[in-house]
Amino acid sequence: MGCLYGVGVGPGDPELLTLKARRVLTEVPVIFVPKKAEENESIAESIISGLALHFESKLVRIVLPMLRNKHKLQEYRQRAADMIWQHLELGQDGAFINVGDPLFYGSFIHVVKVLQSSHPETKIEIVPGVSSINAAAARAVVPLASDDENIAVLSGDQKTETIRNALEKFDTVVFMKVNTIFDRLLGILEEMNLKDKSIYVRRCTTEAEEIVRDIGRLQGDKLDYFSLLIVRK
Amino acid sequence: MGCLYGVGVGPGDPELLTLKARRVLTEVPVIFVPKKAEENESIAESIISGLALHFESKLVRIVLPMLRNKHKLQEYRQRAADMIWQHLELGQDGAFINVGDPLFYGSFIHVVKVLQSSHPETKIEIVPGVSSINAAAARAVVPLASDDENIAVLSGDQKTETIRNALEKFDTVVFMKVNTIFDRLLGILEEMNLKDKSIYVRRCTTEAEEIVRDIGRLQGDKLDYFSLLIVRK
Repeated sequence: MGCLYGVGVGPGDPELLTLKARRVLTEVPVIFVPKKAEENESIAESIISGLALHFESKLVRIVLPMLRNKHKLQEYRQRAADMIWQHLELGQDGAFINVGDPLFYGSFIHVVKVLQSSHPETKIEIVPGVSSINAAAARAVVPLASDDENIAVLSGDQKTETIRNALEKFDTVVFMKVNTIFDRLLGILEEMNLKDKSIYVRRCTTEAEEIVRDIGRLQGDKLDYFSLLIVRK
Repeated sequence: MGCLYGVGVGPGDPELLTLKARRVLTEVPVIFVPKKAEENESIAESIISGLALHFESKLVRIVLPMLRNKHKLQEYRQRAADMIWQHLELGQDGAFINVGDPLFYGSFIHVVKVLQSSHPETKIEIVPGVSSINAAAARAVVPLASDDENIAVLSGDQKTETIRNALEKFDTVVFMKVNTIFDRLLGILEEMNLKDKSIYVRRCTTEAEEIVRDIGRLQGDKLDYFSLLIVRK
């Protein structure tokens, strides 16, 4: 039976792949590429294309859309798992590429869960990657945490109480996928006098990177899905 | 003036360096190596030695001990910053290597702070690295967070109330430097019925790696400084 590698390809800059990720991608006969829709480009694929290692012939594209309908979503994940299993069963190793780190908000998590429930014997190895959090902090040159400090990472559309609690209790709070809650969050940060301690980072380490320290000017804007906010007290 | 690179060298396995980290370390004329004491080996140095790129001749070792005396600590950091500045001032680029990621509990944070206060004009570039959190999750094959989940990272000797609050409110809690609080933490996890959801990981991706799922057996043990606990509800 083949081994399924979950390979983190880092935040965007192809140079932020690890040596191990590059080796595994070079060695495996199949690379599974997740994409949101047939016609979309895959961000993970665009990162490894940047390495110019001529992976093209071994790419297998897998459609994993973002849907609210959980039943439909599960169907797509099951199809992805089945497609991967076909290769593993034949003894082929395969690598599923994931932007950032596979186990940190990665689509790999869902696919592997379905795969493990149909085939508990599946061999899994994870190649961790540089997450967007570490990369965003690097680009903004802002510490995430130091010594005995605590950090919270919140994702998506959170309750105001949850946001306030994190901002009160933690030294640093990172908001992932901040696009869905930005205007509301901005209001909370203003009230808590934390607006000036906040840095917005969009698509860090890519050509579309944007770092905004005066975050008030983003009010009302339609923000990118790949954007986060670091609040460092 | 030279540029100071803060280079994350990853959690331990030399293959988890990024391509960029390896390039920068190959190109710069000086590599600053932090170590706890003159006679100690530097973990960051042992990681890059594993790459066998013959860095030896350009290493400059910097002693940064762990001290409770803040005044003494500041003296060491000032000395480190002065030593680095001597090179930058001459137009030499230098790379300060840091286990994991430089801005995530890295000693680089302190040195750069002192350097920037004496020489605000210092050019800084950070090369983010794979943090021990992502690497530990990878080795244990446990998701850190997914979808709209939240994660907290606590470090060092925290109040019981802070620990309880994090365990109640977050989907995943990671305890860094867990050696200082392990037995107390174990008691809290038992009370909250979370002991079975906890995984202890020591020196992940190195030869001394240890992953313990039955964490009760560690009670009373003297644990390693480089150990963490992932609690995934």
